[in-house]
Amino acid sequence: MPVFEKKEYKKRLKKVKEKMDRDGIEVLLASHPANLNYLTGYDGWSFYVHQGVLVFLDREEPIWFGREQDSNGARLTTWLKEENIRGYQDDYVQSLTKHPMDYMSDILKELGYEDCYLGVEMDNYYFTPRCLNSIKNNLNQVKIKDANQLVPLVRQIKSSQELKYMHMAAEIVEKTMQKAIDIIEPGVREGDAAAEVFKAQISGTKEFTGDYTAIAPIMPSAERTSTAHLTWTDRKYQKGDVVLLELAGSKNKYHAPLSRTVYIGNVPEDLAEISKVVVDGLNKTLAFIKPGITCEEVEEKWRESISGSKVVKESRVGYAYGLNYPPDWGEHTASLRPGDKTILQPGMTFHFMPGIWLDKFGFECSEPFVVTENGCETFVDFPRKLFVK
Amino acid sequence: MPVFEKKEYKKRLKKVKEKMDRDGIEVLLASHPANLNYLTGYDGWSFYVHQGVLVFLDREEPIWFGREQDSNGARLTTWLKEENIRGYQDDYVQSLTKHPMDYMSDILKELGYEDCYLGVEMDNYYFTPRCLNSIKNNLNQVKIKDANQLVPLVRQIKSSQELKYMHMAAEIVEKTMQKAIDIIEPGVREGDAAAEVFKAQISGTKEFTGDYTAIAPIMPSAERTSTAHLTWTDRKYQKGDVVLLELAGSKNKYHAPLSRTVYIGNVPEDLAEISKVVVDGLNKTLAFIKPGITCEEVEEKWRESISGSKVVKESRVGYAYGLNYPPDWGEHTASLRPGDKTILQPGMTFHFMPGIWLDKFGFECSEPFVVTENGCETFVDFPRKLFVK
Repeated sequence: MPVFEKKEYKKRLKKVKEKMDRDGIEVLLASHPANLNYLTGYDGWSFYVHQGVLVFLDREEPIWFGREQDSNGARLTTWLKEENIRGYQDDYVQSLTKHPMDYMSDILKELGYEDCYLGVEMDNYYFTPRCLNSIKNNLNQVKIKDANQLVPLVRQIKSSQELKYMHMAAEIVEKTMQKAIDIIEPGVREGDAAAEVFKAQISGTKEFTGDYTAIAPIMPSAERTSTAHLTWTDRKYQKGDVVLLELAGSKNKYHAPLSRTVYIGNVPEDLAEISKVVVDGLNKTLAFIKPGITCEEVEEKWRESISGSKVVKESRVGYAYGLNYPPDWGEHTASLRPGDKTILQPGMTFHFMPGIWLDKFGFECSEPFVVTENGCETFVDFPRKLFVK
Repeated sequence: MPVFEKKEYKKRLKKVKEKMDRDGIEVLLASHPANLNYLTGYDGWSFYVHQGVLVFLDREEPIWFGREQDSNGARLTTWLKEENIRGYQDDYVQSLTKHPMDYMSDILKELGYEDCYLGVEMDNYYFTPRCLNSIKNNLNQVKIKDANQLVPLVRQIKSSQELKYMHMAAEIVEKTMQKAIDIIEPGVREGDAAAEVFKAQISGTKEFTGDYTAIAPIMPSAERTSTAHLTWTDRKYQKGDVVLLELAGSKNKYHAPLSRTVYIGNVPEDLAEISKVVVDGLNKTLAFIKPGITCEEVEEKWRESISGSKVVKESRVGYAYGLNYPPDWGEHTASLRPGDKTILQPGMTFHFMPGIWLDKFGFECSEPFVVTENGCETFVDFPRKLFVK
């Protein structure tokens, strides 16, 4: 039932254990749903309660633990043996007196790891200060280490099967973006355009359907394009609107994000100019990317490409992405920005996203790409330009 | 631009400050996006980076802080004055050396609160151990208090305008559920049914469109109904399938969740019996609910209603819900289960959700309701039964 062969999970586990060994971690508590999926195949919208996967340096299989009512989900979606699926009773859920990490600590005690070096994820959405306090209270001999980036750094380099899913996601986002551009017209409600976007994302293609994406469609219009991350409203599009579209396709939770911009009416000169500069900078930067250069060099190339123009871009121009769950498809490892010395390697995947948000409107044109042996390859085939309706 | 009048936000703030005062908290750092929205109106899919709202006992307005590129979003969606919107530079984002909570601490220092009693949310998705460490390192005089439930407990009792949005969400979920039941047929891919569900959720009604829901549509079929929280696959429905539908409508991020079950073919006796017992228990329990009783008494009534039947339900049968963002529409305060002594009060809203997950299949039939002066009122008008196709 997992979407990769067992040997692929084993390979991942081997890399994670090597990294644990290097970092002096004997047991890793993975709590981010993308890390759970990556290591075991586990896939369910159960991450609103505490759950996790324990990886032991000296035990072959990890242990999944979660809410008892989700344990059949672990049986159905992971490659783990029955003995390594542990469900906690429901009175641990959102209780003021008990905590799921008490249950996790009991597993470590039972197996004799009460004084181990334990890696935990200190800055993700799914591991809270109360989780950490529970562990410290239950296992006062345990030595805590921050392993926030341990699994995400292994996730950075994609296998051919992972890239296959990302190409499927790309097929979905091409259809989705086209649908969005087609439907945007004066008089149409933003929400009705968003509804068609969702439908296209999930119905996918004739061969396969799509999954929910880790970020909802970002598609503001008019003044609301002056900022990142607004979704849609009941507002009807009007002549003179800029519409931003930051959409994605997803297959087996592997993403293909893509941004484009639509203008309704006669394009104002400043927007035309900005779009030309950004698309030109995007093309030049993509042509420059190859293994061996650093993330900050990519950003520098971008900055150089747009220098002399009116475009100013203060925020990072891209980030590593791939397998993920809400609220973000980014991997939270490498960013294309000054100071990031991550060296590009074949199989790394990035969303190059030079979004521009000015006082009154914005412009976006992005490309997801994979670093190849000689350069990079974009996943999506979609015109790079300002779309005019 | 916020979806409530300013005076409603002021009322909420007054209640929150009274609670802060009672709990000995001088400054509250709210980090859960639902709490940000509740206090200021802030609405954007920016919660994948750290952000927050600071409420001060002795300052009138709260301060919103977040990523600079989202600060126009705060200008557009909140009622706050310009001076109370603070954007941090992009190099704070997912950095190993800087942290957005360093920036937050600087605000507290600047305003003279470096030794205050600071309330933080110790067990939600959006405040991590690293957030807490950053605060402790920057403000070593500050006294930390757990305020995880402070705002959620104020959110429990809904105003008439909030209930209006929840009724709008209910209208949406009625249409959405009908659409799902209509489309499920042998040979249809689960993903194509999910696509129609999303479209119905977002396109809403003629009068208003819908928002994204805090949980994706849960709609497994066949053996995958033996567990909670699975979504959909490429699988085609077949004769003999049970299909679970846990869907919601959302307006302005106020929800109406609803569960129903579909069977394709001639209903097996055990499923028919379970559905009868559950629907009967649901009806009896709803008739029993009124202000003044406790959450555990509601669960007890449910358990009494199904006693003598084959139905066993180990997990809680419902929870407080309302305004929320991914990954959960639940409020994480009251649960309908043994030990929960929360007293029902008019305006509290619950999802009564007696989901049954057996070894080979499951059954769900739920109702969201609001406690009224004399009893309770369900939001949704949809037949309570097993649907047969």
